[in-house]
Amino acid sequence: MPISKNKIKLIRSLANKKNREEEGLFVAEGTKIVSEIVDSNFEVVSVFAVADFFQKHKISDKIEQIEISETELKQISFLTTPNQALALVRIPKREFDINILNSYLVLAYDDIQDPGNLGSVIRTAEWFGIKHIICTQNSVDVFNSKVVQATMGAISRVEVFYTDLEKLFVQISNQNIEIYGTLLNGNNIYNENLTSKGIILFGNESKGISPKLEKFVTKKIKIPEANGNKTESLNVSIASGIVCAEFSRIKN
Amino acid sequence: MPISKNKIKLIRSLANKKNREEEGLFVAEGTKIVSEIVDSNFEVVSVFAVADFFQKHKISDKIEQIEISETELKQISFLTTPNQALALVRIPKREFDINILNSYLVLAYDDIQDPGNLGSVIRTAEWFGIKHIICTQNSVDVFNSKVVQATMGAISRVEVFYTDLEKLFVQISNQNIEIYGTLLNGNNIYNENLTSKGIILFGNESKGISPKLEKFVTKKIKIPEANGNKTESLNVSIASGIVCAEFSRIKN
Repeated sequence: MPISKNKIKLIRSLANKKNREEEGLFVAEGTKIVSEIVDSNFEVVSVFAVADFFQKHKISDKIEQIEISETELKQISFLTTPNQALALVRIPKREFDINILNSYLVLAYDDIQDPGNLGSVIRTAEWFGIKHIICTQNSVDVFNSKVVQATMGAISRVEVFYTDLEKLFVQISNQNIEIYGTLLNGNNIYNENLTSKGIILFGNESKGISPKLEKFVTKKIKIPEANGNKTESLNVSIASGIVCAEFSRIKN
Repeated sequence: MPISKNKIKLIRSLANKKNREEEGLFVAEGTKIVSEIVDSNFEVVSVFAVADFFQKHKISDKIEQIEISETELKQISFLTTPNQALALVRIPKREFDINILNSYLVLAYDDIQDPGNLGSVIRTAEWFGIKHIICTQNSVDVFNSKVVQATMGAISRVEVFYTDLEKLFVQISNQNIEIYGTLLNGNNIYNENLTSKGIILFGNESKGISPKLEKFVTKKIKIPEANGNKTESLNVSIASGIVCAEFSRIKN
């Protein structure tokens, strides 16, 4: 059965955030990501894939499975080089539970904008055992297909929440939770006493951490640069990687 | 004087590597990158910019300066949001001098493919005081406009060389130069004795370091992951950032 015109239209429409929100659906693609997301906590509605994919991956009967041709895959794929399978996945309802902060280290982003950066951050977080990321509501949408693809599958295992960070910081302000902020005027991270719980806050790609959030930072940290360098900053995903590595090194 | 059709055609043609090589030219864009590259070792042939840019940035008379409108800038720009200025720059002839290895730490890439990754690597290298990067000939071209833009200006100060890494490694094999290789079966980087000279080799985004180069690696290193993580690897630019940070931390 060929894929219907309506299905093609629906899938293509999910390139747009407004449509994703209205439909409550997003797209995940490629053999690795699709085979991982069907086994995750996400509710996968349909998998569209070539015959070869279905032969190699046993998928629960509860998920609609539609065999399509390479040509049809090209019609629905958001990738330049489509890779066997595409899944339609339900956007989960998530609310950040502040009790998480009593047990885990959490990353927070003040208006992260670039899809590749957020995807890379999610992949890196998982490498270092970080399971929760909080973003301001103006941040790039985690269900943007570029973000999903850049996570290389980690989206199935790292939870991203959108919330008003200012409100959250007010809410926890009397709870003795460390809020690390990566700031150019911060202290050398290698001289700081890093804890295994709390929040590490990173700023927007061009503006850094906004003043309204900076005032809640309890420890300003900085990755020291080489003497005489002219680079103004590190890319936010690179900074995230270095900071996560350091927190992880200290813990072990 | 409006910009000529031939100039527009020339600039647009530089999106393509073959044309960049034939013309010996590449494009750099935006106020920050253009104002830095005109003061660098690069030979800038022409700067096309809006009046405001020329008022704010004094540029040597030796460089052709063409005032254009915002509309004209849009016609020649490779950016979604053009930013005041575009420079036509001469591609330098560079040959890697192996004596550099006696004094500096150098990054090497085995077929790095993604423009954003290479750009980010260049920006990160500068942050940590690394001035030289060697890439295999199959790597993405540093003068690809996406790479140039992702360096955020560091392209003016970090030299990228293309060479046959296998030949280079043979050439230096009796010189006692450390070749660090980032490999998933490497030793925990935090337990290694890291030196302030030598080569740090990183692999291709999907295939890692090829066997023909791996055999020259004198120290296999790995960034330790959290227990039980399912991520297969870190993004190459993130891994580069963490490794550079660690070499830099040890040195200081």
